Amino acid sequence: MNRLKANPLLSPDDVKPTRGDLEVLCTLNPAAVRFNGEIILLVRVGEKACDREGSVAVLQYDVCCDNLKVHHISKDDDDLDCSDPRKFCYRGKTLLTSMSHLRIARSIDGEHFRFDDEAAIFPATAYEGFGCEDARITCIEGTYYITYTAVSQFGVAVAMASTKDFTDFRRHGIIFPPYQKDVCLFPRKVNGRYVCRHRPYRSEFNDACIWTARSDDLESWGSHEVTLAPLPGTWESERVGAGPPPIETPEGWLDIYHAADSEGRYALGAMLSELDHPERVISRSTKPILQPEMEYERAGVYGNVVFANGMLADDDGTLTIYYGAADTICAAAVTSVDEMLAAAKC
Amino acid sequence: MNRLKANPLLSPDDVKPTRGDLEVLCTLNPAAVRFNGEIILLVRVGEKACDREGSVAVLQYDVCCDNLKVHHISKDDDDLDCSDPRKFCYRGKTLLTSMSHLRIARSIDGEHFRFDDEAAIFPATAYEGFGCEDARITCIEGTYYITYTAVSQFGVAVAMASTKDFTDFRRHGIIFPPYQKDVCLFPRKVNGRYVCRHRPYRSEFNDACIWTARSDDLESWGSHEVTLAPLPGTWESERVGAGPPPIETPEGWLDIYHAADSEGRYALGAMLSELDHPERVISRSTKPILQPEMEYERAGVYGNVVFANGMLADDDGTLTIYYGAADTICAAAVTSVDEMLAAAKC
Repeated sequence: MNRLKANPLLSPDDVKPTRGDLEVLCTLNPAAVRFNGEIILLVRVGEKACDREGSVAVLQYDVCCDNLKVHHISKDDDDLDCSDPRKFCYRGKTLLTSMSHLRIARSIDGEHFRFDDEAAIFPATAYEGFGCEDARITCIEGTYYITYTAVSQFGVAVAMASTKDFTDFRRHGIIFPPYQKDVCLFPRKVNGRYVCRHRPYRSEFNDACIWTARSDDLESWGSHEVTLAPLPGTWESERVGAGPPPIETPEGWLDIYHAADSEGRYALGAMLSELDHPERVISRSTKPILQPEMEYERAGVYGNVVFANGMLADDDGTLTIYYGAADTICAAAVTSVDEMLAAAKC
Repeated sequence: MNRLKANPLLSPDDVKPTRGDLEVLCTLNPAAVRFNGEIILLVRVGEKACDREGSVAVLQYDVCCDNLKVHHISKDDDDLDCSDPRKFCYRGKTLLTSMSHLRIARSIDGEHFRFDDEAAIFPATAYEGFGCEDARITCIEGTYYITYTAVSQFGVAVAMASTKDFTDFRRHGIIFPPYQKDVCLFPRKVNGRYVCRHRPYRSEFNDACIWTARSDDLESWGSHEVTLAPLPGTWESERVGAGPPPIETPEGWLDIYHAADSEGRYALGAMLSELDHPERVISRSTKPILQPEMEYERAGVYGNVVFANGMLADDDGTLTIYYGAADTICAAAVTSVDEMLAAAKC
């Protein structure tokens, strides 16, 4: 796995906020796709409102007035806990330090990207009040389907949008109710049905495992089955979650996934599953295929994180993994299908 | 709402355990349906293994050996917390004090019930290792669909089974992935699609709300929408969850639901939603329609609970609500559609 020398590819300085009174805190976790001769990244852009003296600002989309609202909470408020840089705990509930939307960045060479001036998918429903995050793009039968995390006071759910031109986006609503994240669609039907990975959150009963589900229409999902579980005492002890859409190889479906350990350090792994039964894992990587090592991966809004939800495969077997680092910037690393299959098998 | 004088209708003493070395701890939360001249309750029967001196016994179904296993945990173990009578906390995870299956009890008059000698639905998959709980039965197009909570090390999910005769049951697998409970199916399609209520668990972001979803095949669910939220400072401040299948009335869909307050006291409420848009609430009861008052509702495995997932409607508008009390016994109360509509509107 070779990181691009051009890393970081995209940083908060590279993007215009959606409003003059907002600032961009992070540009992370890009989905990736080739379209019309360009490489398109669909980047999660996290914005925040300016803090007033002695208070923190919480930016949210309010569906009732179809507009943004900013709440200011005094730092002296005993009910406020700011210990996690990604969120505030306030009056028993969690609020986010930044509100994310999804923005396109374009490139010809895959290294030099330029952000569009406007959001592609901006919060617009009651389920997106806290933001739209961590997209995956899968081209199925000529349409590009975008699955993304929709966060709000109603929980962390997964929504879907689709486009044929990356200009007009059609929203399909919530396809997975809370508490779910990390949904990626397979590029083709398996045994006559669409397939996806998804990731229920951990609870008092269960660890955060990757599941596989099936659908006839991409909007309604069933036949849920557990696929990959965390492994105690390892780099993937706390949670695992699906990454970019799996790639079909002669040996099986190749998944790149993320995992976190007990210290909240996020690394990437590879797994291989059966072509006809993608819920059945053939093998998984014992070691991470990419882990936080570079300064831009170790320090940022939330350090020690590499998180991939975008990957491009070339005809020659080259794989470019686009990833978010330290919850702050976008980067990429190059490898090959053969290398990833080997990693998944040892 | 008039409680039957025959309450409790069913108690742990009324049922044979599935194995001689087990004891029945609770018989609760019945689904209800009329079938072949009988009233059938599908009761959650919780069994436990005998504790050894100085230890607690944890009963589970093990899918690998297709058999029950009993783990004994020393009461002196510092990692064991038995403070909640429904569960053990052990090594950071939750285990249940009893493992439930679903058992039929039959009656002619709706007051005197007799349990079948064998389970109708007993844990049989990896998703049922900790038990099958809290069924709802809906007759749709001549088939009886049973939705129930499947609890295991993989989380709290919702599974479905179906039957035409209450003798042979077909399993349809997991229809809602974790963390979901309280799924009830509507008795007919609305605008051409099947409808259900479901209830994602609360998280750091959200309260436990009732949602509505749609399906073309009853197995794959989408179009998820929030329907009813808890109300701070009231008898339904902590959580709400769907009850028996909703009943169609000229004024809208009538739902009986359960709610809990900040002290874990469970009561029942009524709500009315639009016939063509059951995700849109017209009105909800400001006061409980039934709350724990009787001794059998106030004391038991988990006291101060009334929880309904079964209801029968007669042609004359009489409603009989079958409910679990104190997580221990089955009871019933009689009311009418008119009374419940009035309750839902004030």
